[in-house]
Amino acid sequence: MFTLEDIDGVEIDRRAALYGPLADAVRELIDATIRTETDADVIRDVEATVRAATTRLRDRQIDGAYGVRFTPDGTGMPWGNAVVGLRNPIAPPLDIERDEDGRHHSRFTLGAAYEGPPGHVHGGVCALVLDHLLGMTASPGDKPNFTGTLTLRYRRATPLGPLHAEARIDRVEGVKTFVVGTLSDAEGVTVEAEGVFITPAWARD
Amino acid sequence: MFTLEDIDGVEIDRRAALYGPLADAVRELIDATIRTETDADVIRDVEATVRAATTRLRDRQIDGAYGVRFTPDGTGMPWGNAVVGLRNPIAPPLDIERDEDGRHHSRFTLGAAYEGPPGHVHGGVCALVLDHLLGMTASPGDKPNFTGTLTLRYRRATPLGPLHAEARIDRVEGVKTFVVGTLSDAEGVTVEAEGVFITPAWARD
Repeated sequence: MFTLEDIDGVEIDRRAALYGPLADAVRELIDATIRTETDADVIRDVEATVRAATTRLRDRQIDGAYGVRFTPDGTGMPWGNAVVGLRNPIAPPLDIERDEDGRHHSRFTLGAAYEGPPGHVHGGVCALVLDHLLGMTASPGDKPNFTGTLTLRYRRATPLGPLHAEARIDRVEGVKTFVVGTLSDAEGVTVEAEGVFITPAWARD
Repeated sequence: MFTLEDIDGVEIDRRAALYGPLADAVRELIDATIRTETDADVIRDVEATVRAATTRLRDRQIDGAYGVRFTPDGTGMPWGNAVVGLRNPIAPPLDIERDEDGRHHSRFTLGAAYEGPPGHVHGGVCALVLDHLLGMTASPGDKPNFTGTLTLRYRRATPLGPLHAEARIDRVEGVKTFVVGTLSDAEGVTVEAEGVFITPAWARD
């Protein structure tokens, strides 16, 4: 659900400072879960600890998924989002910046949790990141646009480590917005993407 | 790295029984981290517990990402994989079955951790799942094929909950294998995908 929460900036900051570090800690735990080679009895003990911690968190919880919350001034809090969610340990999370000319870009690092081919980013994770970035680029301001098609061209495998993604609007034709973007490592582009985004009937001029 | 491990089926089963439940427990913790509304002091306490558990797991760990391990009989163990990895808490994980005719399919459930639009699967997560399924379908037997392009058509939003994905080879033209697939909920198809996979020069007949 899109939910309106009657909270101010101070309260948003308080919540970010409370939930952000918990999600960060779980991100580290995810990495350690994949990579640990410690003794079996330690692993079983950690498993029990994690289950007990989960029970404590579930003592009071949202019914269903997080949704997207908005404050009265229109600040969006997509904190459960799988790519940018402050509260979602699956999200790297991406911090996306917008230039004055409308270009969007992000620098981020992907580790063991995002692996596909050995030592490399899963091709589908490249798609996940680019889908999100192109979608944000297609919907500047308050006009929503929904993904119609997304095409990815894999030039070469993307190594795990520091990466850079960027996207810009290529052209607008009626209700269709064409967005192009790339994922790159230090050596250059690894994946190219093009998305066609559609303005829904209810949001057209 | 692709690593050869000199272990038998009994040892593989032992490891799966050790690491699988830990990853499952962390998956539940991820969900609870997104959805908890419990008291601030509990959240801070759980965060400290998670950090301590991570330190214990990191006492001995793999240097870098998991890679893909193979046993002497050729059994693959892509346990760190972001979509199917038994040890990767980010992976749902998908259990993919192969029919006699080469069609691949999977039934799985996506919860709060995979959210994009409120109550719905992130479009990029749909891409992640389909990329993996189409890739597996394109590479039957021991002949590797790498993703050249992947095109996704979003027919409508995919709700969080039980889903079904399937893929089949449409045609083979020289070194190119064309694979098509779909993601569906109980009402029908939500996303269509087509992938073009390329046989690398070193693996051509």
